[in-house]
Amino acid sequence: MTKLTTTPAKPGVATFSRLESKVRSYCRSFPTVFKTARNAVLTDQDGRDYIDFLAGCASLNYGHNDPDMKAALVEYIASDGVTHGLDMFTEAKETFLRTFDEVILKPRGLDYRMMFQGPTGANAVEAALKLARKKTGRDNVIAFTNGYHGVTVGALSATGNGGQRAAARSQLSSVSRMPYDGFHGDGVDSAQMLDDMLRDTSSGIDAPAAILLECIQGEGGLNVASKPFLQKLEEIARKHDALLIIDDIQAGCGRSGDFFAFEFAGIKPDIVTMAKSLSGYGLPFSMILMKPEHDVFGPAEHNGTFRGNNHAFVTATAALEKFWRTDVFQKSVEERVAYLTERLSGIAAKAGEDFRLKGRGMMQGIDTGSGELASAICEAGFERGLIIETSGSSNEIVKVLAPLTIEMETFEKGLDILAESFEAVLRAPQAIAAE
Amino acid sequence: MTKLTTTPAKPGVATFSRLESKVRSYCRSFPTVFKTARNAVLTDQDGRDYIDFLAGCASLNYGHNDPDMKAALVEYIASDGVTHGLDMFTEAKETFLRTFDEVILKPRGLDYRMMFQGPTGANAVEAALKLARKKTGRDNVIAFTNGYHGVTVGALSATGNGGQRAAARSQLSSVSRMPYDGFHGDGVDSAQMLDDMLRDTSSGIDAPAAILLECIQGEGGLNVASKPFLQKLEEIARKHDALLIIDDIQAGCGRSGDFFAFEFAGIKPDIVTMAKSLSGYGLPFSMILMKPEHDVFGPAEHNGTFRGNNHAFVTATAALEKFWRTDVFQKSVEERVAYLTERLSGIAAKAGEDFRLKGRGMMQGIDTGSGELASAICEAGFERGLIIETSGSSNEIVKVLAPLTIEMETFEKGLDILAESFEAVLRAPQAIAAE
Amino acid sequence: MTKLTTTPAKPGVATFSRLESKVRSYCRSFPTVFKTARNAVLTDQDGRDYIDFLAGCASLNYGHNDPDMKAALVEYIASDGVTHGLDMFTEAKETFLRTFDEVILKPRGLDYRMMFQGPTGANAVEAALKLARKKTGRDNVIAFTNGYHGVTVGALSATGNGGQRAAARSQLSSVSRMPYDGFHGDGVDSAQMLDDMLRDTSSGIDAPAAILLECIQGEGGLNVASKPFLQKLEEIARKHDALLIIDDIQAGCGRSGDFFAFEFAGIKPDIVTMAKSLSGYGLPFSMILMKPEHDVFGPAEHNGTFRGNNHAFVTATAALEKFWRTDVFQKSVEERVAYLTERLSGIAAKAGEDFRLKGRGMMQGIDTGSGELASAICEAGFERGLIIETSGSSNEIVKVLAPLTIEMETFEKGLDILAESFEAVLRAPQAIAAE
Amino acid sequence: MTKLTTTPAKPGVATFSRLESKVRSYCRSFPTVFKTARNAVLTDQDGRDYIDFLAGCASLNYGHNDPDMKAALVEYIASDGVTHGLDMFTEAKETFLRTFDEVILKPRGLDYRMMFQGPTGANAVEAALKLARKKTGRDNVIAFTNGYHGVTVGALSATGNGGQRAAARSQLSSVSRMPYDGFHGDGVDSAQMLDDMLRDTSSGIDAPAAILLECIQGEGGLNVASKPFLQKLEEIARKHDALLIIDDIQAGCGRSGDFFAFEFAGIKPDIVTMAKSLSGYGLPFSMILMKPEHDVFGPAEHNGTFRGNNHAFVTATAALEKFWRTDVFQKSVEERVAYLTERLSGIAAKAGEDFRLKGRGMMQGIDTGSGELASAICEAGFERGLIIETSGSSNEIVKVLAPLTIEMETFEKGLDILAESFEAVLRAPQAIAAE
Repeated sequence: MTKLTTTPAKPGVATFSRLESKVRSYCRSFPTVFKTARNAVLTDQDGRDYIDFLAGCASLNYGHNDPDMKAALVEYIASDGVTHGLDMFTEAKETFLRTFDEVILKPRGLDYRMMFQGPTGANAVEAALKLARKKTGRDNVIAFTNGYHGVTVGALSATGNGGQRAAARSQLSSVSRMPYDGFHGDGVDSAQMLDDMLRDTSSGIDAPAAILLECIQGEGGLNVASKPFLQKLEEIARKHDALLIIDDIQAGCGRSGDFFAFEFAGIKPDIVTMAKSLSGYGLPFSMILMKPEHDVFGPAEHNGTFRGNNHAFVTATAALEKFWRTDVFQKSVEERVAYLTERLSGIAAKAGEDFRLKGRGMMQGIDTGSGELASAICEAGFERGLIIETSGSSNEIVKVLAPLTIEMETFEKGLDILAESFEAVLRAPQAIAAE
Repeated sequence: MTKLTTTPAKPGVATFSRLESKVRSYCRSFPTVFKTARNAVLTDQDGRDYIDFLAGCASLNYGHNDPDMKAALVEYIASDGVTHGLDMFTEAKETFLRTFDEVILKPRGLDYRMMFQGPTGANAVEAALKLARKKTGRDNVIAFTNGYHGVTVGALSATGNGGQRAAARSQLSSVSRMPYDGFHGDGVDSAQMLDDMLRDTSSGIDAPAAILLECIQGEGGLNVASKPFLQKLEEIARKHDALLIIDDIQAGCGRSGDFFAFEFAGIKPDIVTMAKSLSGYGLPFSMILMKPEHDVFGPAEHNGTFRGNNHAFVTATAALEKFWRTDVFQKSVEERVAYLTERLSGIAAKAGEDFRLKGRGMMQGIDTGSGELASAICEAGFERGLIIETSGSSNEIVKVLAPLTIEMETFEKGLDILAESFEAVLRAPQAIAAE
Repeated sequence: MTKLTTTPAKPGVATFSRLESKVRSYCRSFPTVFKTARNAVLTDQDGRDYIDFLAGCASLNYGHNDPDMKAALVEYIASDGVTHGLDMFTEAKETFLRTFDEVILKPRGLDYRMMFQGPTGANAVEAALKLARKKTGRDNVIAFTNGYHGVTVGALSATGNGGQRAAARSQLSSVSRMPYDGFHGDGVDSAQMLDDMLRDTSSGIDAPAAILLECIQGEGGLNVASKPFLQKLEEIARKHDALLIIDDIQAGCGRSGDFFAFEFAGIKPDIVTMAKSLSGYGLPFSMILMKPEHDVFGPAEHNGTFRGNNHAFVTATAALEKFWRTDVFQKSVEERVAYLTERLSGIAAKAGEDFRLKGRGMMQGIDTGSGELASAICEAGFERGLIIETSGSSNEIVKVLAPLTIEMETFEKGLDILAESFEAVLRAPQAIAAE
Repeated sequence: MTKLTTTPAKPGVATFSRLESKVRSYCRSFPTVFKTARNAVLTDQDGRDYIDFLAGCASLNYGHNDPDMKAALVEYIASDGVTHGLDMFTEAKETFLRTFDEVILKPRGLDYRMMFQGPTGANAVEAALKLARKKTGRDNVIAFTNGYHGVTVGALSATGNGGQRAAARSQLSSVSRMPYDGFHGDGVDSAQMLDDMLRDTSSGIDAPAAILLECIQGEGGLNVASKPFLQKLEEIARKHDALLIIDDIQAGCGRSGDFFAFEFAGIKPDIVTMAKSLSGYGLPFSMILMKPEHDVFGPAEHNGTFRGNNHAFVTATAALEKFWRTDVFQKSVEERVAYLTERLSGIAAKAGEDFRLKGRGMMQGIDTGSGELASAICEAGFERGLIIETSGSSNEIVKVLAPLTIEMETFEKGLDILAESFEAVLRAPQAIAAE
């Protein structure tokens, strides 16, 4: 989420104040006009470089403007490949379907159908919930504390963020909220609680169509679902005839270390939502995966003009071929995860005992305990050429979402800046006041 | 909407049956695999050409792969222009904001702020409704019979389509339905009815946050809102402190003959939703326009990962420069409108007295009175190399949505095929049974 | 509905201000403390008599404290008859069931089962709607402008009153509002409009579980459903597999002239809600009648502690025996209806051409066109010893709800006071300002 | 809740099958026709006596047809006291208001206003929730597992019972469910969990208007809220600006041992709902108490025809005078509580180690672990002349709700029958199968 304090804006920024809605947010943290980007580096109009530890909120797992995807996309455009085809058959779509099946699904023993709806994560969540409700004939959906699933009304019902919920409160419905793994502290088994609720027919929690969660809560504070928690939820879903939906929009596509963030737990969700890094190139694209027995929508029962973005099919296919045909990439990600963990541990240790490491894989951060503090650190980072953002209910976590493809040298430099930023803020006299 | 009867599929189509969700729909009407496209012509894998009278459901008002937009886009990509930038400032966005203001808003005396949300029409509607509710502190929204605003829960509440509503019925809320212009026949003043309802504090229609409508109902059957109807709605909105929202997603960007479909009525909506042809190139992109006094969202109160698609900013800017700086294009559209009206009138007259012309501008069609008939005609068209679809509650209207840029020769050829298709179907023995 | 202006309160009234919630309303119009009552006369602590043209909002169709019901009730209490029996079998209930069947249902060719829920009209509506939704498996309910069905959330969803709706707005759901007979003026066929909406699958009005209405709108302004309107609604309900629910809470039990207000139209509703005068004595009591094929609730699926009020069974049985075994009573009501119509016509004619008679049977009033005026007239009536209230969206109608058993002499005297009150107010200088 | 298995019905019962809805329930457990009742004894048409351990589900705390209330009521009726007066001022109401204030509120240091709505418990809950929502401007309400608050839509949203919820599921909204004290077992602090949820702005639990609970869950299984739990909820309500609503409908009026079930915890709820035993005589009557600062309804904003049942004012006043002016009655209740606890402990101990005592005060029972078992025990009791019912999600608890006024001899006899019934069922061969 976004900090509200801003560095004074540059002159070129006036157009935005005059013509763009006040809803704009990230630009408030990074008040410069960007022009070009390559892998982990963004460059502004004045030619200044910034190391990107935000990566389009995990939409750029393969970095900005990967040259192989770029080449494939330019070639497709140059050859007048179909750009907009509604959900008509195109070669680009066929190739993507086959490639995803071969490269991702089959090797993992997964049998899913793919659905393309409006190319946003929120729309994938809307489609998934609607599908689960149709399949089961039930209304209720179990969602979790600090979950983030988008801001259209159907998805927002499942999202925890109070500020965003407030804007549509009376429309939100048919969701029961349960504590996420660890929400009530270490001694409390959140999955068992859900089972308690569902077993008791007078608990007031109606039999659910679906249990919806992220394996790592990206916006909600880098909270992590453990393997036993995920396995128990799968078991609860089976027992109560509910569908298990993993929202892998932010944690998927390699961000957790595996392609899917749920792989490590050995579970097979009924539905998986994907978006963000799925196109590989940052293009709008989303998909849901469903077990064939849940493929119950009639034609156009959920539709959308931009479903099936052909440019995205092209780049997504290129990404699958380049990064997931072999295990070379995944091993390089492991290396980065190890490095990140080590560096963040060092920074947190130096910062003090109240500073905790959170997250998993290439989705880790430091809980500073204070939104003011975390925002000040991010601001200090930006002044030093680093794009980094906060996460959590109070924006109290400094979150590292670097591209998985980041060069080690750049990664090191970015983490150096981060370390400096922590030190600068914590050493400053006002930091004491902020605590 | 989509016909359910399908021509036998080609062999290459098997991948889709195996791996894509059954929700797929348009591909059922046009069972071939498309590869390339230029302006009004789509070409399949076998090299067969099809004249496109669907134009991405009005997402391709400037045709497929316009060469100038293509050049601008390829150049942007080649130069590593920022592809994904969340809602950070980019040069591409700044240029679009300025150009839209100069080329479209100022000459029409309109003062609007622009908001970019998730790049779908449905998301634009969700943002518009949420904004109106926040501004007014009211929940209720007036929507109209046969309106189509998308299928995410917030937008779907306002959409009329029963099949799509059924999938999410219990989540739909806070919308009151009123008859659209002409819904109850000629003698009945639908706008007056709304006023009756809103003036009576015990009518059961709660004071609304917004009145939401399309000027031409694209999916709902090419129903047309008259100038007096639109003017009266604007007056009613003012009187009852509600916001007037024009959903210009399908009818906007020149489709009606003007850039905005509401221009001819001289009204100034409080909010306008735009998507479909806004990028010009068929790329996912949506925007809402709001009067500055309605710019009340806080930062990120409505957000989304793909808000602000930079590729779309580039092509949209190119489209504005090419087609709207001068009135050359608009005049060429007028010419096509006149030709279309003449040809469709001829076809309808020949078909019989029950066949009625519907729609306005480059959004016209023939009401055949029967979904089976209209579908058979479209199918006959496809066999002859024409891509055309139906519209209306029973899919009873054959709808022409050709690119506004279609070459006159191609347009003539497409309409010839359409005429033939009508004749073929109406002459066939089973047509009598179908009636 | 209640006027907000009040005559200065008597000293004895202080207890109420100190200890009773400000929600109290009728007492504001009639600021004296009542002690006893007989038929059409209420007497206050000071021994002053008031003719009662409000009759407990039609809960006292047989007047206050009818001597025969009184005797039956006292005897039952004295003999320790079961007072509270949940829904266990009691003699009092059995007698009521048999008597209602013999005296009311069979002679009218009606075959209904009876259900006793919490003894309020609102609860009857809640039960009826729930039953219709269970029977049909649908959510939507058609309700009408100016309808009044109670203020618990399920019933309030169907009630039109904006002030009362506002208190619970965001909870209200699953009701579509349609114009009542005559709402849009004489030329407009409201029933046809409903049919238009239901026939069109994209109208946005979902297939309804029920069509719910009053035959005469007591709170909504004495609007009257014509015979053709009711017949057409019955036909529409059949055609669209919806249940027709007549809310006969206020207009039933003889108020319209017949026992049921729908009898004159020859229709057979699927469900009928009854309350108010059903006990005959003003005791809390409500019932729904349902065709046997709609008797689909499981045991206790809708329940309530006070369902089946045995005191009310006793008085209700006495009322049926006394008033409905023969047609003597009904004829005496006809006489009063004729007299009322004649007198109100005279008063309205004298008041001016803008004053219109409204209503039907013993449920008539004069539309004064102004809430201030009507309230002033009622206040003038109270000063002269008449209890009378307003009705309508703006409280613009002076409504006569005298007991059906009112002695002709008292009736005449009450109407004389009413005539005087009209004159007094219309002659007063401030009346001109009020217009 | 009600058992579904029934003893064969008596011949006189046929009227009910023919004419009463299948929703009837308690009569299925006790298939005889009752005629008279005195204190703790019901007598059927055949003159057979039954000891009443159900007491109108705690609506008859002072037994059936108390002679002093009876005398007061008969005198009131005989003197033509106003029976139905809407919410007009009557002597009977004034006397009740003053007496309740003097006898109940002032001695307990409580300052409340009283509101009379439709005379059912559900309506009291509807009024309370609506009031809290109006006062706070918030929608959400916290309700608890196994809570029971009635079945009209607004109240049902807060009720846990799945069977009853199912009938209206899609209408239920704006309630968040939390675990009641002890729901997740001994180690888990349910109140702390609520606080965790409300402190985290992204928990997805929106800031609540109210926290609603019973101190002893009568229908939900005789679960008991501890003193620390209630005190912590009061503190949480204060901290988060929510209103604490105690639903004292079943546990109030002396049932817990004190007049209010919350007294022992020393808390002062913002709103209290009362019904059931409030009239003392089993007459329909309900009331909410609110702190003066929450008295924010406008006139008639929540109303109802039978609000302010004068017969009930008369008996309720008599009950207050007789039982609560001095502490004699309360001491006699203590004696019965002690005796009940001792006897139930004995029965449970004899039954086996899986049989647990539950509840508090004169609201205790034995958890048999099985709905079949508990129902069989109640059935055995009925055969022996005892009216007793089950409670809990699976009807697994045999619940004793004897009148507080029960003669010790009758109490002993009833408990003897209960002991026999346990033995008879547990000794029977089929009991083994049932387990």
